[in-house]
Amino acid sequence: MDTQSFRKHAHELVDWMADYFESVEDYPVMSQVKPGDILKQIPTKAPNQPESFDQMLKDFNDIIMPGVTHWESPNFMAYFPANKSKGSVLAEMLMSTLGAQCMQWLTSPAAAELEEQMMNWLREMLGLPESFTGVIQDTASTATLCALLTAREKATNYSINEKGFDERKFTIYSSEQIHSSIDKAVKIAGFGIEALRKVEVDDGYAMIPEKLEELIEADKAAGYIPLCVVSAIGTTSTTAVDPINEIGDICLKHNIWHHVDAAYAGTALVLPEMRWMSEGVEKADSFVFNPHKWMFTNFDCTAYFVKDPVSLVNTFTITPDYLKTSVDGDVKNYRDWGIPLGRRFRALKLWFVIREFGVEGIRAKIRKHIMLGKWLAQEIDAHSDFELMAPVPMNTVCFRYTKGEESQLDVLNEAIMNKINNSGKLFFTQTKLKGKFVLRLAFGNTNLEAFHVENAWQLIQETASEIKP
Amino acid sequence: MDTQSFRKHAHELVDWMADYFESVEDYPVMSQVKPGDILKQIPTKAPNQPESFDQMLKDFNDIIMPGVTHWESPNFMAYFPANKSKGSVLAEMLMSTLGAQCMQWLTSPAAAELEEQMMNWLREMLGLPESFTGVIQDTASTATLCALLTAREKATNYSINEKGFDERKFTIYSSEQIHSSIDKAVKIAGFGIEALRKVEVDDGYAMIPEKLEELIEADKAAGYIPLCVVSAIGTTSTTAVDPINEIGDICLKHNIWHHVDAAYAGTALVLPEMRWMSEGVEKADSFVFNPHKWMFTNFDCTAYFVKDPVSLVNTFTITPDYLKTSVDGDVKNYRDWGIPLGRRFRALKLWFVIREFGVEGIRAKIRKHIMLGKWLAQEIDAHSDFELMAPVPMNTVCFRYTKGEESQLDVLNEAIMNKINNSGKLFFTQTKLKGKFVLRLAFGNTNLEAFHVENAWQLIQETASEIKP
Repeated sequence: MDTQSFRKHAHELVDWMADYFESVEDYPVMSQVKPGDILKQIPTKAPNQPESFDQMLKDFNDIIMPGVTHWESPNFMAYFPANKSKGSVLAEMLMSTLGAQCMQWLTSPAAAELEEQMMNWLREMLGLPESFTGVIQDTASTATLCALLTAREKATNYSINEKGFDERKFTIYSSEQIHSSIDKAVKIAGFGIEALRKVEVDDGYAMIPEKLEELIEADKAAGYIPLCVVSAIGTTSTTAVDPINEIGDICLKHNIWHHVDAAYAGTALVLPEMRWMSEGVEKADSFVFNPHKWMFTNFDCTAYFVKDPVSLVNTFTITPDYLKTSVDGDVKNYRDWGIPLGRRFRALKLWFVIREFGVEGIRAKIRKHIMLGKWLAQEIDAHSDFELMAPVPMNTVCFRYTKGEESQLDVLNEAIMNKINNSGKLFFTQTKLKGKFVLRLAFGNTNLEAFHVENAWQLIQETASEIKP
Repeated sequence: MDTQSFRKHAHELVDWMADYFESVEDYPVMSQVKPGDILKQIPTKAPNQPESFDQMLKDFNDIIMPGVTHWESPNFMAYFPANKSKGSVLAEMLMSTLGAQCMQWLTSPAAAELEEQMMNWLREMLGLPESFTGVIQDTASTATLCALLTAREKATNYSINEKGFDERKFTIYSSEQIHSSIDKAVKIAGFGIEALRKVEVDDGYAMIPEKLEELIEADKAAGYIPLCVVSAIGTTSTTAVDPINEIGDICLKHNIWHHVDAAYAGTALVLPEMRWMSEGVEKADSFVFNPHKWMFTNFDCTAYFVKDPVSLVNTFTITPDYLKTSVDGDVKNYRDWGIPLGRRFRALKLWFVIREFGVEGIRAKIRKHIMLGKWLAQEIDAHSDFELMAPVPMNTVCFRYTKGEESQLDVLNEAIMNKINNSGKLFFTQTKLKGKFVLRLAFGNTNLEAFHVENAWQLIQETASEIKP
């Protein structure tokens, strides 16, 4: 494709993109295709000769679009949002054009230095301590793995990196409600899932610090080495907030790495009135949150903060001859701050997004989302046929329909969810709390308005009343 | 930013993008800024109020662009290319607009099913065995870590995932020339770098299979469990090709996982005449190559193939309640095929790139690149003041200027490289071979023409003759 054709087709795409933003609510939110529907439309063999872009765009519209679940829709209330904003998309256009692979300073100094400053911006925006240093990672899964590995190496004076595991047995702690990526990281890092202690939670699904300390002391008495506590600001099921401050004290007392997983809810710390969630965070060793979830920044972009960047770099640094540069002593080579060598120019997205909204603009949106969460919680609480299943500190609401026999409620609620998701009008997901099937709405889309939440609530009530138990 | 403004600004960006493609050779290839030059121009605090996109684009041009190293330039001959193509950039525009997070089938069925078929296309394009199943990863670093972890778990019946390491000591093998990501993965997976045996290489920097087997047998005799051999089709320094077939036999004989790292050179397997490099690959357990290096696909996009997908999934699967869907039994949920939970819709890029060129179009470009590599190797070989430092099977050429005392050659060659890189006309890097400083040119840019390589060679000769030893 020559540049002239690119210019023409890229202009066509811009109109497609803008039209999509305008019409996204017309699509079924959850894709309505069945397994295999897309696959059978894609030829089994690659074409030998070039095809026209017009044909490619036609196929994209005809074949791919029906198979897309619309994360961009304000009626997407499943999982946590993977938000974006128009400034973020514009940044992605520039990033993909430059195509810079930002593994080290020299391979694009602007990427490294903008990343450093964007992490400073985010640190201050969230009210994190000045003693924290930030780096961009792809996802929170990876950042949490980095935390566990750094804890492992710091505690052993880097001896596992050198000699592998020895007879020492380490233990890791999180609440029962922690994200599955912690289980995965514990396995990858070689501890074995049996080393992960799931601490009991209180009625609000937050970790009980006394139970944590009991486990730590029992493990110490049994000869284990307590290594790391992963606490959550906003668990995945219910956005429960673990008591960071008390957990921090316990970690300091027992010399344990404290990693704070604020993947989703970290963004809410832009609001001074939400900083109760992070009280005591200055005692933590590491903290992660995802601008790609709730801060309007295209996936992927994770912000990982550490108190001691030297131990992070010591855990990951490797400098073969072919990567050495004359400025290595004077600059940050972020390849040594995480797992993959190659890195995209993700800082550009943050720069565009934060300037697009301004800090006050971001605050206004987050405040609105939380206000709508509280509103829906009140509505559900006041309705005799529904019950809230967890506290609602932000904009994730867990509840269920209760009109029927207890033994039928799981099936009934699942039927409500499936009927609505299959309608294409709204997409949300489930979780399980105390063994019960729970409807879970998480709404934080960039373009969410009050009416989207009101409509969702209306639709759920109507659907529930239509379904026979 | 409303949609109308987005439409306007995105059209402006398209013109910027097309202009960039037309003018990329006018920029200094390697950024000429000094450490701190960019950082000091970025405000230390985030703006409270929104800023205009015009201001953002102005700052991008004024502040960021001088700090960009131009991977898009055909005069970028450093490292390995992180290539792209116009079709790939168009795909990135659509991907960022949809913003789908493709962690599992339901979150965008089209992404999962297109990924499956694109991996089939690539498998056939490279002449890989039908018994291989593919999945997209972010980078080869991550894929290699996946290989080591799967080998670890399969060999222990998943007991390290469950219980952590025990007294068993594993060993891993690669040549001395293997990429640094293998060292990193060995550390992360908990083996300790002492477990990594670096096998001696022959004069062409390829692994000597007899030396490999000697090490394996010695380790077995000493009570170690040989776990995995990482061989290379195209090492990073010189694109040496390890004897995959012989290594495969040794691995089968000793029941060792064989992972083939073809990160860069895998793309050359689109050429039937280059398939000598992959002879015996059907005996391997896993194989990785990066379409984001030499196959014109925007970073990041890594293709990872395995013989036994069940063991891959068993190593990584975790299904919390909030991720369960009703179709889990019928579909591929690629979150279980690697480390991060979140995934971009990368398959779209492959679909666009392969159709943009057609397989024959890709072959034509790769053939030209290899032909230019051979040409430059002959030129250097024929020149009395230069010497080739390694065989040139493809388009990476390692050589040095030799007019001077041996004791001065390292300094002299480094001076040549720095002078040229600082001129902005060409950017290449160094490696070290047998303790000697070596100039290394790797040219595989999408838009590379013969004159780019001829000019580079001319510039190197001129610069060498100007520098006083």
